[in-house]
Amino acid sequence: MKATVLESAGRVRLVHVPDPVIQRPGDALVRVCLAAVCGSDLWPFRGREPFTPGDRMGHEWVGIVEETGPDVARVRPGDLVIAPFAFADGTCRPCREGLFTSCPDGGFWGGRHDGGQAEAVRVPFADATLLPVRADADTCLLPRLLPLTDVMATGTHAAVLAGTEPGSTVVVIGDGAVGMCAVLAAHRAGAERILLAGRHVERGNLARRMGATDVLAADDPATAEIVRNQTQGGAWNVAECAGTQSALDLAIDLVRPGGTIGSVGVPNGVEHVDLYRLFRHNITLRAGVAPARRYLEPLLADVLAGRLDPSPVFSLELPLDDVASAYHAMDTRQALKVALRP
Amino acid sequence: MKATVLESAGRVRLVHVPDPVIQRPGDALVRVCLAAVCGSDLWPFRGREPFTPGDRMGHEWVGIVEETGPDVARVRPGDLVIAPFAFADGTCRPCREGLFTSCPDGGFWGGRHDGGQAEAVRVPFADATLLPVRADADTCLLPRLLPLTDVMATGTHAAVLAGTEPGSTVVVIGDGAVGMCAVLAAHRAGAERILLAGRHVERGNLARRMGATDVLAADDPATAEIVRNQTQGGAWNVAECAGTQSALDLAIDLVRPGGTIGSVGVPNGVEHVDLYRLFRHNITLRAGVAPARRYLEPLLADVLAGRLDPSPVFSLELPLDDVASAYHAMDTRQALKVALRP
Repeated sequence: MKATVLESAGRVRLVHVPDPVIQRPGDALVRVCLAAVCGSDLWPFRGREPFTPGDRMGHEWVGIVEETGPDVARVRPGDLVIAPFAFADGTCRPCREGLFTSCPDGGFWGGRHDGGQAEAVRVPFADATLLPVRADADTCLLPRLLPLTDVMATGTHAAVLAGTEPGSTVVVIGDGAVGMCAVLAAHRAGAERILLAGRHVERGNLARRMGATDVLAADDPATAEIVRNQTQGGAWNVAECAGTQSALDLAIDLVRPGGTIGSVGVPNGVEHVDLYRLFRHNITLRAGVAPARRYLEPLLADVLAGRLDPSPVFSLELPLDDVASAYHAMDTRQALKVALRP
Repeated sequence: MKATVLESAGRVRLVHVPDPVIQRPGDALVRVCLAAVCGSDLWPFRGREPFTPGDRMGHEWVGIVEETGPDVARVRPGDLVIAPFAFADGTCRPCREGLFTSCPDGGFWGGRHDGGQAEAVRVPFADATLLPVRADADTCLLPRLLPLTDVMATGTHAAVLAGTEPGSTVVVIGDGAVGMCAVLAAHRAGAERILLAGRHVERGNLARRMGATDVLAADDPATAEIVRNQTQGGAWNVAECAGTQSALDLAIDLVRPGGTIGSVGVPNGVEHVDLYRLFRHNITLRAGVAPARRYLEPLLADVLAGRLDPSPVFSLELPLDDVASAYHAMDTRQALKVALRP
């Protein structure tokens, strides 16, 4: 089959690799229907995160089950399934506590595991990991389902960690796909006012379509002051969705004393956390990789009911064969997010 | 009157200063009955925190009101009062939200304000700041009341920030007076198991008397592993009561994935917060200076009812005249905490 590998910084390539096979009784083989490039794929692509040449790429994908091991009971060949970006055994203590991403036997797609930017994936712990959609595999539905695998689950986690409640005023920092999904998630959670601080003014319209009430420039030194003024002292709920030093600093700058920062961006190049300011003003910092599996059922229910549509985060769809172009488009910010069709 | 000043690193002295006078209508003048030296006083004393030579010292004290300004209504001359370590106006938004330590017009005793290691203190916003005890000013009661001004309120805040609930297993890091009070506070909050990780084995008996079920050596590399084993994966609730790099690192090492660290030690020399580990395992970090005023009423009620006695944190009482000896005893760890009687 064909699979995307990272050959060197700046160079991804679709190469022929052996077809995956069932290795353990709990495995499933899934044919990928639609995959995506994630903002976090760009960190190793840019050489800003370590990788091994030849690492498989892609952790966002949905597909159709082709074959299952003898222990698999919940998913069946032919099922359309959603795969969260982390697989997990579902039985260990962290899994039972809902923290699937801390499963000691779990892992993330890509690297030495199969990646999703490929034609097929071997899925360990298929019963615990995959969520069958059990609906007509209408191809129109795929772009709405695909974000649930990561960015929509992560945006939801951001809104949850930030403490969003009905009526909340939430500041979302970062206008990448996760930030957009955090806006959508805050809206879904009943936030009354959602201020998005981003770096790309041209994304403002999309942000408003997702539910943002205000769009601010993250790199404008006046932004923190504007937020403090408009919230009478700072925001109670801040969703940091970039993972960079400047995003974290801005979050700490505009959060209200006693408020909460939910931080879901993979920390990249964050050299300093202003602990003294957190301490001085009793600010809660809740950083966390999204245990995406936890959010899949309710998000899927909303998508199927037509109440949730995160597909606008995809600004481009390309054939899997053009994966290099997809990375290029995201790396140069010509595309917010790219879907790949094998 | 006599007041303690920090003349230079390592040198405190009791000097004669002008008697305080009412300056604003909301002021009260209070004669100090008992004061204490705090672990955080040692940071400037050791030259590890900036100070201005001549800074007044002491933020833990209880006293008798001598005079009040015309706007003061809740406290009266003759009242025995407890002063939290921060004064606050009680009317601003942070105060109304219970975050007295973030009051823009508030401040901390000492420095350019009057300090508590003195014969008297001018108290701004006396109505909002002071809590009248309205009980017989039995001198036996003073050592039980004095810890409420800081260490017992801060220990309570630690237990609260760490998310302590009835039945919780709580790890307290730091066996100074705040750590001891956090043990007491966790016990008071219904924690079932309280593990204290400290650096002074000789304080173990006191810790057990305060409610610790296990005493561990904070600097033993095996301690985190012991806690993880005994808690099946790490502690949900960790109260970091030292403010040092090693204490924070230990907290992050032994907290459970998905768990919470409440951090109340004034950060001192903390160069690095392991944000990646917080992110990787969804650990909540709640750092905060205690809004002590918030906790005074319920703590006082418990002291007056005989349900709470934090006085064992004082291992030594000296006359105020011996303030230099008091600092020396704490600096050299001969005393856990010293009370000073003017």
